[in-house]
Amino acid sequence: MLDVHPAWLPASAFRSVGSRRVRVVGDGPVVATVRAEVAAATAEHGGALVDDGPADLELVCAPEDGETDPEAFVVGRAGRTAVVRAIGGPGLLYGFHHLVRQGEAAFTGEAGPQRHAPRQPVRMLDHWDNVAVHPVMGQVERGYSGGSIFYADGVVRADLSRVRSYARLLGSIGVNRVGLNNVNVGPAEAGLLTDLLPDVVRLAEVFRPHGIRVHLSVSFAAPVTLGGLPTADPLDPAVRDWWARTTADVYAAIPDFGGYVIKADSEGQPGPFAYGRDHADGANVLARALAPFGGTVFWRAFVYDHHQDWRDRSTDRARAAHDHFAPLDGAFDPNVVVQVKAGPMDFQAREPLSPVVAAMPRTRLAVEFQVTQEYTGHQKHVCHLVPQWREMLGFRPWGEGEPTVADVAAGRAAAPAGGVVAVSNVGDDPFWTGHPLAQANLFGFGRLAWDERLAPEAVLDEWIGLTYPGDPAVCQALHEIMDGSWLTYERYTAPLGVGFMVRPGLHYGPAVDGYEYSRWGTYHFADRDGVGVDRTRATGTGFTGQYPAPWRDRYESTDTCPDELLLFFHHVPYGHVLHSGTTVIQHIYDTHFAGHDEVRRMAATWAGLEGRVPAEVFDRVTGLLVEQLRCATEWRDQVNTYFWRKSGVPDARGRTIH
Amino acid sequence: MLDVHPAWLPASAFRSVGSRRVRVVGDGPVVATVRAEVAAATAEHGGALVDDGPADLELVCAPEDGETDPEAFVVGRAGRTAVVRAIGGPGLLYGFHHLVRQGEAAFTGEAGPQRHAPRQPVRMLDHWDNVAVHPVMGQVERGYSGGSIFYADGVVRADLSRVRSYARLLGSIGVNRVGLNNVNVGPAEAGLLTDLLPDVVRLAEVFRPHGIRVHLSVSFAAPVTLGGLPTADPLDPAVRDWWARTTADVYAAIPDFGGYVIKADSEGQPGPFAYGRDHADGANVLARALAPFGGTVFWRAFVYDHHQDWRDRSTDRARAAHDHFAPLDGAFDPNVVVQVKAGPMDFQAREPLSPVVAAMPRTRLAVEFQVTQEYTGHQKHVCHLVPQWREMLGFRPWGEGEPTVADVAAGRAAAPAGGVVAVSNVGDDPFWTGHPLAQANLFGFGRLAWDERLAPEAVLDEWIGLTYPGDPAVCQALHEIMDGSWLTYERYTAPLGVGFMVRPGLHYGPAVDGYEYSRWGTYHFADRDGVGVDRTRATGTGFTGQYPAPWRDRYESTDTCPDELLLFFHHVPYGHVLHSGTTVIQHIYDTHFAGHDEVRRMAATWAGLEGRVPAEVFDRVTGLLVEQLRCATEWRDQVNTYFWRKSGVPDARGRTIH
Repeated sequence: MLDVHPAWLPASAFRSVGSRRVRVVGDGPVVATVRAEVAAATAEHGGALVDDGPADLELVCAPEDGETDPEAFVVGRAGRTAVVRAIGGPGLLYGFHHLVRQGEAAFTGEAGPQRHAPRQPVRMLDHWDNVAVHPVMGQVERGYSGGSIFYADGVVRADLSRVRSYARLLGSIGVNRVGLNNVNVGPAEAGLLTDLLPDVVRLAEVFRPHGIRVHLSVSFAAPVTLGGLPTADPLDPAVRDWWARTTADVYAAIPDFGGYVIKADSEGQPGPFAYGRDHADGANVLARALAPFGGTVFWRAFVYDHHQDWRDRSTDRARAAHDHFAPLDGAFDPNVVVQVKAGPMDFQAREPLSPVVAAMPRTRLAVEFQVTQEYTGHQKHVCHLVPQWREMLGFRPWGEGEPTVADVAAGRAAAPAGGVVAVSNVGDDPFWTGHPLAQANLFGFGRLAWDERLAPEAVLDEWIGLTYPGDPAVCQALHEIMDGSWLTYERYTAPLGVGFMVRPGLHYGPAVDGYEYSRWGTYHFADRDGVGVDRTRATGTGFTGQYPAPWRDRYESTDTCPDELLLFFHHVPYGHVLHSGTTVIQHIYDTHFAGHDEVRRMAATWAGLEGRVPAEVFDRVTGLLVEQLRCATEWRDQVNTYFWRKSGVPDARGRTIH
Repeated sequence: MLDVHPAWLPASAFRSVGSRRVRVVGDGPVVATVRAEVAAATAEHGGALVDDGPADLELVCAPEDGETDPEAFVVGRAGRTAVVRAIGGPGLLYGFHHLVRQGEAAFTGEAGPQRHAPRQPVRMLDHWDNVAVHPVMGQVERGYSGGSIFYADGVVRADLSRVRSYARLLGSIGVNRVGLNNVNVGPAEAGLLTDLLPDVVRLAEVFRPHGIRVHLSVSFAAPVTLGGLPTADPLDPAVRDWWARTTADVYAAIPDFGGYVIKADSEGQPGPFAYGRDHADGANVLARALAPFGGTVFWRAFVYDHHQDWRDRSTDRARAAHDHFAPLDGAFDPNVVVQVKAGPMDFQAREPLSPVVAAMPRTRLAVEFQVTQEYTGHQKHVCHLVPQWREMLGFRPWGEGEPTVADVAAGRAAAPAGGVVAVSNVGDDPFWTGHPLAQANLFGFGRLAWDERLAPEAVLDEWIGLTYPGDPAVCQALHEIMDGSWLTYERYTAPLGVGFMVRPGLHYGPAVDGYEYSRWGTYHFADRDGVGVDRTRATGTGFTGQYPAPWRDRYESTDTCPDELLLFFHHVPYGHVLHSGTTVIQHIYDTHFAGHDEVRRMAATWAGLEGRVPAEVFDRVTGLLVEQLRCATEWRDQVNTYFWRKSGVPDARGRTIH
């Protein structure tokens, strides 16, 4: 029986720090965490935690002129002693792990003092964990890593040791907020705000020493369902008072409580529309309850018509968030963050940026990613998503020289910072993430949230080096398997940005027409002549017009629309020639054969690691690669056959299409 | 709150008998049932149950020279007294209900004695009821009428009053066997054979007074799972002994126990293949355990590869039952009945006859129908299936002048009788069948099983007259709504016999490609040029060769293949001209518009019955027709759009195709 896997913090990762004499100076719960880490590392590796006398490393938490960010740190030298200084415990913790990641390099060579600070003030993981197992969605909605680490048997776990280990992992990569429960809030989960609050206190106590504040997802109907009021109308004084009172009770118990996360008027969740109010009205009533205590409400912008008529080509789900939210710019209170899914649809392998990100200069915006692989292989497939997030965060909605998406989220564009948020991929699986290699997505999210300019391949190598240290062949093989795996996944699934084509509800495995005649607004419109969604202003849904220049025009024309998003924006004939020089239909065939071949190569590369990685890791990944190859075969064959039957165009290279 | 609906036995149905002086002569539990019916009817309607003196009606159960069938009865006159004679209680019960159905006509006019006997000795309803609610399939697998009338909360119900009413309904239409539990036998259900046997005794006691013997579905693995043996190999002496001993225990408790029903080596159920044995080996070990007590094993022929590869066009699920069973003809013991689904696939709205029915002259065969509307609208749609069963039972596999399917099942062809079996559509719904009009399918099954030569429209009118008596406008409207409803359903769903196109798993509502790339062997192979499954000997799977002449040749050629089965047997271009004179693609459009229009007319006709049928019936059916119309609209539009996108052929009549 495998113990819980140490992920990127095995004992070996602490060798360089742990073999030295280290002094830790400062007070408070997070500094205590640093001290405990040093104590454990030095005990393991022969160094010492020293109070006085010479030290190889000093970790100092103390006020510093000119520094205001408690999450920042400065690394430098004082003589032969490496020094990390921070004005707050979190900064010291991050500085400590910075050294851990650097290993021996932190102690060699010369370097002047370097200040490091997070590029994003809010780096948050949302958990879609249910207290009570949902009859359809299970314990963790869209969770592929076993049960919840927070909840079991309908209550908060008595034993929070897994949560403690998790908080340590998150603290080491700079995550500073955690949403504790699913945004779809059921009756059992609603009680976290009131009856179960003592258990939330326990969870907050576990996260606090790692610099992490906890949030709760709440139901907009809570004044009715929990409070017994006749309405949840946000403009009703009794509702306002209920939220204020309830929130004050939470802060009395958890003074550093982060605030609320809320999915309102979305996929059946209650919201302000029921009372003829808009989302600003809805968000502000929560915000005003939180404001006295410094809390924040993260109000999700994932609002769309989920009872759409597939016959109606004028309604476009991609437009929905912008249609709903852009007109409200300026109407939100200062402690409201509108939390926007990075793409306009729903966490597909390839989407353009959500235009909402560029449409609300007077609103704090957070960009939401999905670490859990809902649409990207359920943590049965290797799909290293860090390059995708890097691309989204680095995207410049207003063109070259203008702010990036990360700048918007960080408050470097117009409005103050909102943050970067992602849905966690963690469960009570011994490997944390089901697929052992999916740990790298959790790690990489934290690293990119800290600094979106990091190169994805460097982040990957950091993770590999910490988690599977010591064997260059292993490192190289893992890099080969993982680095391009997102693009591989894209190749064997839905082509050219058109998305979906997954099994309805499940969202795993191919079903080309699975959502084509559904109410979900997720169509590809393939017919015998062509495929894709016309979202142009000229002849389509007008979605391109939600972007600022230059993208509103680049996306509008097939001449300038990037190939990888062509079918997201345009309905084109199968014979349409891509910028790559190949036709759409041949591109579909080529990428599906290529993606499948790549999975086969991944599996072969992995097979070479037998005996070089721990047996339980080898066996788990080996089994999953069998499934990935099986599933990629289905994807390849179903997509190719579907388009061959429809188009009648044979593969130019004569490969087998069934 | 509606009481339980009386179905076709409301008090009013007994007026003609109940207003007369009636004498009942004879003994035994079923005669006692007749006497109780007469007592209740005369109390209600002013007649009298008399012991001596003049009588208007005599119901006499006594030995009669020359009569050997205890289920037969003779109706005639002795002076002014109507007389029913039978040698057994069941015959008397059936004669009694014969008079009830005739009403006043039974007592007027002159008529010589007429003998009535069932055309089928075995008239059976199988229940797919689970003792424990199945996490996916629910309490009643493919049940659309609420929970089980037999089981609740994981046990046999304490209160069997619904079962008593059900047994009375079945006895009135001549059903004489009932299978009590799902053929997919779970752990809780397996216990009916042993631990729960006392509850089966209680159920048998409820059915016995209505002339009905009970059966249990058993698991082939029972010697292992219940008996603790290391094997269920049918040739193992310990296994043989276990079945013999267990069966003897059942008969000690239930002397008229009917026997077993078994689904083996099918869709994951255990079977003899695991031990390298064939289905005759498997069936015979059960048969030999039952034989000393006169019991029968119904061994289902529904064996096929449910992990088929959609890429492999040579494997044909339609062939499977014949491939497995035809070679075993002659190998089954005399008390084995091979139970064959009427069609070779799975209870679609339209299928040809299963060729197994014509392939096993030395084997007792039962033909299985589905009263529960798994693929025909889930008892949300009006779909009167009696005409379908009539057509199947009257089909002559060897051509004109040769025996019918009913003849084979009845033992009038070669082998002795097997019987007619159907899956019940009943649950604890107040209307019994979810849709109030679906009661007519249950009624009609019993009537056709008694005599397959009855005209479906006459059976329908019998049911209408009993259930909604007294208002000719209601009778006419119901007839209009129901009589053609099976063909209506066929029109708006999968075209020309190709089948499926339903939502996977659920089997309700359209999903044209829902099963197209699945492992279930249920494909339509539509591409831009044509559609259908080539099952010819010349170029296809050779399935046509499983039929005897003349059908092996009629199905083989598009010149002679009936239109309604064209796509079951042939892959043809969209422009193929049907015998009807229209092309395949235009037929698809025409029938889908027509079927949808028919549902609209049904709803309009029903709307005219407000105030003329009980309000609870009116409201239930009105709501269901809204759903049927919604669903028929989806079917029409999805099927039409699918084929329009694929074929590119416009509707010749210019109607809207999205």
